[in-house]
Amino acid sequence: MALLTGKEYVESLKEFSPEVYIRGERVEKVWDHPLLKQTINHIAAGYDFALDPEFKDRSAVRSRLTGEEVPRLQLHIQQSLEDVIIKAKLTRDVTGRRICAGCMSNMLSVTWAMIHDIDAAHGTDYFSRYREFIENLQRKGYMIAWGMMDPKGDRSLPPSGQKQPTDLRIVKRRPDGIMVRGAKVHTTYGPAAHQVVVVPCRALGERDKDFAVSFALPVDAKGLKMIARPSPGPTHDVQMESPLTSKYMGVEAMTIFDDVFVPEERIFMCGEWDKALSLPLYFSSLHRQSKCACSAGHTDLLIGTAALAAEVNGLGMKVGHIRDKITEMMMAAETAFGCSLGAALEGKIHGSGVFLPDAPIANSGLNYIRSRMGVHLGYIHDIAGGLISTMPTEADWNHPELRGYIERGLRGSPGYTTEERLRVMNLAQDLAASRLTGTLLGFTMNAAGSPVTNGIVVRNLYDLKKRIQIAKEIAGLSTMPF
Amino acid sequence: MALLTGKEYVESLKEFSPEVYIRGERVEKVWDHPLLKQTINHIAAGYDFALDPEFKDRSAVRSRLTGEEVPRLQLHIQQSLEDVIIKAKLTRDVTGRRICAGCMSNMLSVTWAMIHDIDAAHGTDYFSRYREFIENLQRKGYMIAWGMMDPKGDRSLPPSGQKQPTDLRIVKRRPDGIMVRGAKVHTTYGPAAHQVVVVPCRALGERDKDFAVSFALPVDAKGLKMIARPSPGPTHDVQMESPLTSKYMGVEAMTIFDDVFVPEERIFMCGEWDKALSLPLYFSSLHRQSKCACSAGHTDLLIGTAALAAEVNGLGMKVGHIRDKITEMMMAAETAFGCSLGAALEGKIHGSGVFLPDAPIANSGLNYIRSRMGVHLGYIHDIAGGLISTMPTEADWNHPELRGYIERGLRGSPGYTTEERLRVMNLAQDLAASRLTGTLLGFTMNAAGSPVTNGIVVRNLYDLKKRIQIAKEIAGLSTMPF
Amino acid sequence: MALLTGKEYVESLKEFSPEVYIRGERVEKVWDHPLLKQTINHIAAGYDFALDPEFKDRSAVRSRLTGEEVPRLQLHIQQSLEDVIIKAKLTRDVTGRRICAGCMSNMLSVTWAMIHDIDAAHGTDYFSRYREFIENLQRKGYMIAWGMMDPKGDRSLPPSGQKQPTDLRIVKRRPDGIMVRGAKVHTTYGPAAHQVVVVPCRALGERDKDFAVSFALPVDAKGLKMIARPSPGPTHDVQMESPLTSKYMGVEAMTIFDDVFVPEERIFMCGEWDKALSLPLYFSSLHRQSKCACSAGHTDLLIGTAALAAEVNGLGMKVGHIRDKITEMMMAAETAFGCSLGAALEGKIHGSGVFLPDAPIANSGLNYIRSRMGVHLGYIHDIAGGLISTMPTEADWNHPELRGYIERGLRGSPGYTTEERLRVMNLAQDLAASRLTGTLLGFTMNAAGSPVTNGIVVRNLYDLKKRIQIAKEIAGLSTMPF
Amino acid sequence: MALLTGKEYVESLKEFSPEVYIRGERVEKVWDHPLLKQTINHIAAGYDFALDPEFKDRSAVRSRLTGEEVPRLQLHIQQSLEDVIIKAKLTRDVTGRRICAGCMSNMLSVTWAMIHDIDAAHGTDYFSRYREFIENLQRKGYMIAWGMMDPKGDRSLPPSGQKQPTDLRIVKRRPDGIMVRGAKVHTTYGPAAHQVVVVPCRALGERDKDFAVSFALPVDAKGLKMIARPSPGPTHDVQMESPLTSKYMGVEAMTIFDDVFVPEERIFMCGEWDKALSLPLYFSSLHRQSKCACSAGHTDLLIGTAALAAEVNGLGMKVGHIRDKITEMMMAAETAFGCSLGAALEGKIHGSGVFLPDAPIANSGLNYIRSRMGVHLGYIHDIAGGLISTMPTEADWNHPELRGYIERGLRGSPGYTTEERLRVMNLAQDLAASRLTGTLLGFTMNAAGSPVTNGIVVRNLYDLKKRIQIAKEIAGLSTMPF
Repeated sequence: MALLTGKEYVESLKEFSPEVYIRGERVEKVWDHPLLKQTINHIAAGYDFALDPEFKDRSAVRSRLTGEEVPRLQLHIQQSLEDVIIKAKLTRDVTGRRICAGCMSNMLSVTWAMIHDIDAAHGTDYFSRYREFIENLQRKGYMIAWGMMDPKGDRSLPPSGQKQPTDLRIVKRRPDGIMVRGAKVHTTYGPAAHQVVVVPCRALGERDKDFAVSFALPVDAKGLKMIARPSPGPTHDVQMESPLTSKYMGVEAMTIFDDVFVPEERIFMCGEWDKALSLPLYFSSLHRQSKCACSAGHTDLLIGTAALAAEVNGLGMKVGHIRDKITEMMMAAETAFGCSLGAALEGKIHGSGVFLPDAPIANSGLNYIRSRMGVHLGYIHDIAGGLISTMPTEADWNHPELRGYIERGLRGSPGYTTEERLRVMNLAQDLAASRLTGTLLGFTMNAAGSPVTNGIVVRNLYDLKKRIQIAKEIAGLSTMPF
Repeated sequence: MALLTGKEYVESLKEFSPEVYIRGERVEKVWDHPLLKQTINHIAAGYDFALDPEFKDRSAVRSRLTGEEVPRLQLHIQQSLEDVIIKAKLTRDVTGRRICAGCMSNMLSVTWAMIHDIDAAHGTDYFSRYREFIENLQRKGYMIAWGMMDPKGDRSLPPSGQKQPTDLRIVKRRPDGIMVRGAKVHTTYGPAAHQVVVVPCRALGERDKDFAVSFALPVDAKGLKMIARPSPGPTHDVQMESPLTSKYMGVEAMTIFDDVFVPEERIFMCGEWDKALSLPLYFSSLHRQSKCACSAGHTDLLIGTAALAAEVNGLGMKVGHIRDKITEMMMAAETAFGCSLGAALEGKIHGSGVFLPDAPIANSGLNYIRSRMGVHLGYIHDIAGGLISTMPTEADWNHPELRGYIERGLRGSPGYTTEERLRVMNLAQDLAASRLTGTLLGFTMNAAGSPVTNGIVVRNLYDLKKRIQIAKEIAGLSTMPF
Repeated sequence: MALLTGKEYVESLKEFSPEVYIRGERVEKVWDHPLLKQTINHIAAGYDFALDPEFKDRSAVRSRLTGEEVPRLQLHIQQSLEDVIIKAKLTRDVTGRRICAGCMSNMLSVTWAMIHDIDAAHGTDYFSRYREFIENLQRKGYMIAWGMMDPKGDRSLPPSGQKQPTDLRIVKRRPDGIMVRGAKVHTTYGPAAHQVVVVPCRALGERDKDFAVSFALPVDAKGLKMIARPSPGPTHDVQMESPLTSKYMGVEAMTIFDDVFVPEERIFMCGEWDKALSLPLYFSSLHRQSKCACSAGHTDLLIGTAALAAEVNGLGMKVGHIRDKITEMMMAAETAFGCSLGAALEGKIHGSGVFLPDAPIANSGLNYIRSRMGVHLGYIHDIAGGLISTMPTEADWNHPELRGYIERGLRGSPGYTTEERLRVMNLAQDLAASRLTGTLLGFTMNAAGSPVTNGIVVRNLYDLKKRIQIAKEIAGLSTMPF
Repeated sequence: MALLTGKEYVESLKEFSPEVYIRGERVEKVWDHPLLKQTINHIAAGYDFALDPEFKDRSAVRSRLTGEEVPRLQLHIQQSLEDVIIKAKLTRDVTGRRICAGCMSNMLSVTWAMIHDIDAAHGTDYFSRYREFIENLQRKGYMIAWGMMDPKGDRSLPPSGQKQPTDLRIVKRRPDGIMVRGAKVHTTYGPAAHQVVVVPCRALGERDKDFAVSFALPVDAKGLKMIARPSPGPTHDVQMESPLTSKYMGVEAMTIFDDVFVPEERIFMCGEWDKALSLPLYFSSLHRQSKCACSAGHTDLLIGTAALAAEVNGLGMKVGHIRDKITEMMMAAETAFGCSLGAALEGKIHGSGVFLPDAPIANSGLNYIRSRMGVHLGYIHDIAGGLISTMPTEADWNHPELRGYIERGLRGSPGYTTEERLRVMNLAQDLAASRLTGTLLGFTMNAAGSPVTNGIVVRNLYDLKKRIQIAKEIAGLSTMPF
């Protein structure tokens, strides 16, 4: 049962009745709301991917916990070099087709490692609870929404130092559980998940101990509310105009915990502030190794689109500047992907059994591709041409009289019909001149942590002392005649 | 009468009844259509700008043709160093506030110079016609739509070599005028203009002589149709969510000439293919000098937004990476603007009286800022944070119950209310995570000609022979003992 | 007499007997020392430039002080827009031929402005002394060495906070003058000048007032010593191998003031610490406007060399990647030069009569070209090929038997002899694979102040408040209904 | 015997008497010539490295051919993933200390693979000869000089199309061997090797078949001459001033084959033009995977030097711009190294048993770090300061009187003596402001093939068709209603 089809996933949503809002209105049926259509479709595609004959030997994997197959990107605990390599390759495959691979398995894995650390340091027994939770999850084939990022309020102050706290925190400790209050932001796919898992997002001090909290809850737990922001796709039905975003991409949500009760058996961290840092630390290793591959996939998608756009325009790869720009994108994709693999190769197994790739390589490769995404989006405009910002819309094309004018006026290469050219221009538009453009930039910059944190991780882990020592030796400082 | 108010402009539109389509439907009243609202508003703002007491001494100018004041950016013929300097400064001022300055005066000026060239080479007398047309335009204070870019069809072939022609061309020569057929694309603001002026967009060969055509027509000339693509703003009323695009930015149109008659007195070029190149040549000088300033203004707008976003988040310029990224944007803006001024300083007066800035400097500065725009848009995400892609929408904020949760959850710096923070995040979103993002990239890459043409212009005009000669002298090639 | 020939300059050096050391040995005759050969030659070329018929109308200028002609780049006080434009163009011309234009006039001018500020603030009368000094200098046609940069010691502490001071300072005040002690570094051309002028290099606090000192002295003042570092050229005679550095480029010196007496009439600042900042401030405007042009000239030289190298290799500009890299260099040169002119255009006349260009534009343009120099040097290797690091030396070529092998083995394009090809490869080597390479990088990075100071200047002068205010207005913060 | 000490290597040179010239003079004793000192020392250090207790378990390896240990970087045939990973790590270690790791094993390996291809295609039996040659080489522990790059003459023409051929070619075929004539360039370390191995450097056509030649010869074969270019170090003895280049770095040579006879048993290719491409192809995979690690090591060396320079100046990593620039260098090093490992991971075993890393990843990572080297060299100037181009020389420091002035004048951080500071400044100077600077740029740009070839390799191997196909599917081109 662990491998649901997309359809079964949609059915399974009917078991839950979460309190979800979108554009100011309460969503009654998550599985059947026009503004959640792409979200549901995107997740369903992820389920089907694990059953896709072309990929199944890699996209599904037998869980060591349950012995049953699970969707690798969503529910597998990463435990070996092979795991993270396959994951990277699958991620690139999926993001090169529909932008987001929904790789929740990274989050499950880094939480696994953090909880292990807590028990080791504090003699607690959260791990067995979490393990049981994961087993259940894998058996059900459930989708997880991740509540990691706190809103942070005044960013110059710690959570406990805020005049009025914003971040998720424990407000009451009871024998059978805890009451929590506050918000988490950036809950990707939130309303369309079955379970919400919450973890800390940064290092905490002793005074912040009420903010050191991790737990799982069903998405319709009492007091839990989600305010969703529509996915970047169109609100009306335009499949030609928005070939990608009319079908795929998920909502983002703000998740409110309005005094929500968490039963003891679903609490995985409860005040152990000294281990909060473990989460972003392991995240910066495992998830950024994925993010390198993810960004490589985005670049692949831009490459294919750019090359096809050049072709339908009658130009193609033979035009020097087009060939050079596309080659540059290829090299950026390969560099990021190479770092994903290189980070895997230098990885190590954490005490908990989770495999953690080399953080400096993963963060460096990610930082590089990040710096290029905006440039590459500009290349799409450069290569596809001004038409992607100015051409008639799908409705014009469907207008019987106008179609003739457009048909004649916007012909491109004789190898393609005008409709084919328009379809390709629309794909370029959907990527580089639609709301998705901003989402892509946002994904690139902020998903998996902001660029500045890449530098911090690398700086902290690079062996600068050794390098300074070698420089001293060469300069002759150690053999000086004092 | 040459200085209309924005309101007078809207009134004046009622004199015309153009055949305009948008999203597949015929527009009855251009001045009162929901999808043209921002366009009309944007142009009206341009009219008001010429009357704005803060700017009027520069934004309005006395025409040497009529002796009356005209809006400088829209209707003035650029004739001096002072003209192009003031124009550059005004352009930066306007684009730093509402993205597009509508600087049609550049097009009027380069057409002025091209027509002068034609008469000089061919002994024709187009110039007096054009001059009269411009005088009339200035007296009426009319808005022009520019039909420059041909669709080009199969880009690997010349206009006359296409299997089925797409570009605008003369199909019949009559004693009293010509019949024209074909299309022009990228007609910015098209439906909201009073007159359409058409010019060639590239070098033409003798076989292309029917494509060497320039003329002016009222926007509602018989057979002239425009298919408009909505401006990047929202279709529903969300001023908080889209503070910029709910008010400003214009439609782009494809303009169809379905056997349109042009009377003799409005024809400015009719087959003189050898002078077609003059237009893009002068354009690459005068319009790109503006475009440097235009892009500097866009960057200014990103800078202000980024700095304000950092502030409402409780961070501000004291955070190293934020300060550095904003400083980098400042330097890019100043570099582009410096080149706009430097190009002006090295400019020359064309035989027609039009002032043409130095093309190598203008093209180099523009090429630089172009290469940074995608990066700078990424900085907005980096500095403002993930919230700009994930936060609740305006409708959520207006929901009485949800507002409380948002109010508490998304507080930022104590110096600002949550609403103020949200408004700023929404501005950042409107710039870097909305459909405008792609439009900005498109503007940067393709408006004023594509990046690859910058290099061509610089390469053609840079004195490489002299540089090679100096290298030969230093290397000693000229004094070798043979 | 103010326009000396190069020969007259060399003769004039015999009037002075400075205490100069080079490679650990005392230099007896500055005008006739093998390690100072290039320095003397370089300066002499600067004198001859002012008399060069091709340039004289610009390279010489009538001084407003003396009514006599002076070499513009060396001895003119910059007083108008025209001055700084001509200076920029001349600078690019000269640095495109022999790397350094010796533009001491900038230093004379910014010191002029600083002294004016001191008198205005303190009621002192340094200005008349300085004016008299300059008049004398212009009449004699003397060469100045500039002592601006202090060694700074522990850079984390101010001059007065050093455990043991290093910077130049007043150690005794006497009725007839002052005794000074300490060092100045980076005294370009020092040993080959007639006079040394000293100015402060940074903002000073009240405790640093003894470091706030400016004066002029003959180069052979008692107690003044210079330790010179040889120019980057070869020490043996290889004109083919090092076509540029065997002839040009100057020494750099460390200047020691070992209790040197400065007579009252040559003191221009004596403790007025609050005005020390004026010097680097004006310097960052006037000198960096020159530096933009200077770096453009360096880039021109690289361009000519690269294009010629490609040609002698049988490739030339028709090879795509070569053409693109050279075009990129052209655009960088034009951008920097455009900013030099643009900064001039936005400049203002200081109260002292000195013309100060716009600092944000000058600093932004400079920062840009700085970031490209290392890349462009790499392009020389890329375009000229590996030979510039591996080919036989001039002595091999002069060996009767070896020459035949080289002649046959290293033929390139049939349009050039092997010797011609080798000469060009040697020029490329002299620029990109010799000690000059590092000097060029050093010039680019550190001459005219370090890159980080560009950002500081721009950030301080950019009107960020206005930009934030506009963002607030657009976001709707000023009209919020509270 | 296969693991010689450095001393044994020097002794072994006495067995050979090659015809070597340097600066126009015949070298009598290679092992004892002042201009070859650094070369000999550098290679000797490579031999000692294989015996260094800290590295020996990796720097020496048991050969599968002889069963004896050999120095891994010099003489091992790369046959497994583990081989190329260890090689990459060792390479970074060595180049981070003395710039060049002398990794001839790559060349031995790719030649191994090419010869295998020849035999497979032509039924020849070169492979057994080559294998025997390698076994002998490994047993003797001999150093190889590689003759790969042909001078190419007029680069727009193929070798056989030159008016007067320059490249190495067969001029006579005899029963017992061949006579060869022509030149090879860039023979790194040439004069200090025992054997020369020659391979083709590019694709050849049928007419070029005489240029399709590969063989091995002792360095003192009759008619073989080498004209060496001194290594970038100083010619006089200055260990403080040039701490790196006074000790290390090798000569580059042009190798002349003046009708040299090659006996049958040392010929590995003789006219099989269709397999010439195999060499650069495999080279672009295996050697560029090393080159990524090599460039990472160079960057490590720059990082250590920059950080130490900042420290002795009293600044250190706490200064924002210094920290950021050093962090950027760290990320570049990690990115290139990550790609070296990632390329290894995606590698495959060639039919000959040689392990060939993934070329797109290796070429992409290399292309990236290449584009940064010039920038990073500029950072050394930026961080260390102007002193590295202007400070007194070692001879001044050794001058009893001058030392005092320098001692007092150039103090830096109180944690270091002036001498220590000078030593560090000199190291920075040796890297970024000496002739090594150009050599580093040359190494980065041209060693392992020029940058433009990176793009070609990636473009040829990237699966663009698949990407275009996916774009077509998304755009809806495959389901269109025709």
